[in-house]
Amino acid sequence: MNSECVFCKIVAGTLPAVRVYEDAETLAFLDIAPVVKGHTLVIPRAHYPDLMAIPAPLLERLIGVVQRIAAAQIRGLKAEGINVTQANGRLAGQVIPHIHFHVIPRFPEDGHSFNWKPRKYERQEEMEQFAAGIKAALSGGA
Amino acid sequence: MNSECVFCKIVAGTLPAVRVYEDAETLAFLDIAPVVKGHTLVIPRAHYPDLMAIPAPLLERLIGVVQRIAAAQIRGLKAEGINVTQANGRLAGQVIPHIHFHVIPRFPEDGHSFNWKPRKYERQEEMEQFAAGIKAALSGGA
Repeated sequence: MNSECVFCKIVAGTLPAVRVYEDAETLAFLDIAPVVKGHTLVIPRAHYPDLMAIPAPLLERLIGVVQRIAAAQIRGLKAEGINVTQANGRLAGQVIPHIHFHVIPRFPEDGHSFNWKPRKYERQEEMEQFAAGIKAALSGGA
Repeated sequence: MNSECVFCKIVAGTLPAVRVYEDAETLAFLDIAPVVKGHTLVIPRAHYPDLMAIPAPLLERLIGVVQRIAAAQIRGLKAEGINVTQANGRLAGQVIPHIHFHVIPRFPEDGHSFNWKPRKYERQEEMEQFAAGIKAALSGGA
């Protein structure tokens, strides 16, 4: 519980939310500012700021709820597609520093589109350099 | 293995990819058309089209790899934020029907921004209707 955190207040019930699912460790509720109506947030009850901070077993619980909400949006809202997004850090657009997954139902002509502008690596070596940076960190070397 | 699937071919090694991580069930490699350089895809070796189709235990493995790649992008690439996205269905922008998570490192002035236009529900009742649709499906009633 972080007393400054909007999502902790929703968990505690001191801020209202339209809940769609909850269990001992997780909570799912509608985003009040939906990208597409039906847009649902899935959070852990415990306060962890982001993907890097949450313990792996709790993250596994969370993604299981994301999966169930996605299926429920398809069956229950007749959604024809689902976007799942999760942002970490202000630079990535994270506003509330309590880890959350967005589960966004998609419908024909729902008016939404993500900005997705693919780029290119200058050359194979540049790509290998990025891969090397990630691999070094994975093996504990960075 | 789906003989038409680009990602199955990468798993099989018949299409090239710059791999950053692999284990018995999962594979992570650089997206050749990165939204931001370092953009990594995390997939299961087995072919499942989307989030609704993948077995929960394998999904848990996959999100664990997503978490490790995100941490490695921060440590190894000095990323200052991370976006995780996952699309299901053409309407949601899914191009290759083999489930994949995008792990996108973010840097100051990386030139990328997602289009994120929040909307509003007309009234509380409308919000409750969407919630009811999801809850009915979760409980097996829709």
